[in-house]
Formats: sequence, C-alpha cells, structure tokens
Amino acid sequence: MQEEGCELCAQGGPNATPAVYADDKLSVIIVDDANYPGFCRVIWRDHVREMSDLSREDRLLLNEVVFHVEQAVRETMAPTKMNVASLGNVVPHLHWHIIPRYADDAHFPAPVWATAVRKSDESVLEARRAQLPHLQEAIARRLQQS
Amino acid sequence: MQEEGCELCAQGGPNATPAVYADDKLSVIIVDDANYPGFCRVIWRDHVREMSDLSREDRLLLNEVVFHVEQAVRETMAPTKMNVASLGNVVPHLHWHIIPRYADDAHFPAPVWATAVRKSDESVLEARRAQLPHLQEAIARRLQQS
Repeated sequence: MQEEGCELCAQGGPNATPAVYADDKLSVIIVDDANYPGFCRVIWRDHVREMSDLSREDRLLLNEVVFHVEQAVRETMAPTKMNVASLGNVVPHLHWHIIPRYADDAHFPAPVWATAVRKSDESVLEARRAQLPHLQEAIARRLQQS
Repeated sequence: MQEEGCELCAQGGPNATPAVYADDKLSVIIVDDANYPGFCRVIWRDHVREMSDLSREDRLLLNEVVFHVEQAVRETMAPTKMNVASLGNVVPHLHWHIIPRYADDAHFPAPVWATAVRKSDESVLEARRAQLPHLQEAIARRLQQS
C-alpha cells in the first residue's frame, strides 16, 4: 500500500536516502543531520498511519527493530540519553526516530524539536560522525541476525 | 530500585498525580495539561534509564501497555494523529508520552516541544476535556483485561 506524494512511501525509490537495512516490511536509515550524527529512522514500508493500525505480529516486529537500532546506537555512539519517538504529524506514514542525545548537543536537555540552545563543538561532532560506519555495521549485524 | 530526588520515582508517593492504572511494574497517568487534554504518560516503576535496560519480558510488557493506552486515547479522543515518545533527558527515568494531536492544537504539525503557533479555541478544549472520564475508563478497562 503506497500513497501518492508521500515522501516516506518513496523511501524505496531511486531518490531515497540509502537504507542501512531493508526488508519487505521496513527500512532503517541513518539520517543526514549535521547536528545529530547517529540519528536513525525506522520506516514502515506500507503507508500505515499509527502503531495501533498494525497487526499484532507487525507491531511486535517493529518494536523489536526499534529496540535493536536503539541498542546499536547505544553501543557505537555512547550517548548520554536515547530519545525514541513516533510523531508523523507532517508525514503521517509510520516511522520511528531514534536519536542519541548528549549534554553538549544543540538542544539538550530539551527535545531536538525545541529551539536550539547552543552549537556543539565541530571537533566533537566530527568524532561522532567517525563512528557512523560502526553504527551502520552494528545495525546491519543485529537486524540480519534477528 | 528508587533514586533519591527523582520525581518519577516519587510517582508512587503521596504528592504524585493520581494514577489511572497502577501495578507493581508501572503506572499510567492522565497529564494535567490545559492545551493537551488526553495527554497520557506511562511510567515504569523502577528507576531504569532506557528501554534497552529492561529485560525482554519487561520491555514487551511496557510496549504492550503503551499500545493499549494509544488505543484508549484513539477511541475516546479521536485525534488527528497520535504522538508517542520516550525522551527523559530532564528526568532520566523510563516513561512514555502518549499525546493526541489535532490540526487546531497549539503546535500542530510541529511536535508539542516546539514553539507554540496558536491558541486552541477554549470551547474545543472543553469538549475534549469532557472526554477524560471516558478515557480514564477505557485505559482501566484495557489494562485490567490484558
């Protein structure tokens, strides 16, 4: 089930962000956000609006993948705190944000959607970006085993 | 496991918001937010930091309770969209926000943590608040059966 004009339905298409992991149910991408290296998104493949619109089996599967991505982010990015959210007000196509947070990040301790309160040190962000290949590998390994 | 000074560890205490549902693992409250009638919070009882710090059994239980609360909110509050998030940067004690969103709410389509863009009509908020006894009943019914 795809919806015309939905940017997340297009996630499987030629102009989409390359997925770190993809199967027939969902895909996982590492978001290209300069302030938040390690920000991941788990995107359900079908155009479904809410978690509670999924079958029980699919819901448990999606929860499990979000958990594995959280684990992969924790083990490679060593954040101060994990933030996990499913919002979708702008794009009502089921997806989860999995965001490593640090005391020196642009919004901490506020959510990343609040007004920024600082600029993180570029060398610190660079060191975090250097972990992304490890994050990519950790996500693929966990999801291919599960 | 409790942590001194943690306001969510105190959720079981005498000054806490009365819970709509509580057992030895978690509690559910309806948040007293004038702009967001139906905003619920599921609070893990022990002082645990992240979903991925729970045992598998506890994690599945908590996911299931969040799902039931989402369902209860949808059936009684008829929102445009559900928002579900576990952040905890300020209070790093595991809890989930379950928020009914409407096209006329203070922040839509931005997350509730962004800057407000409007004031909702008071009569509309009143009508939503009038649903809270039904929400309370729906949460209790779903969780007592599960």
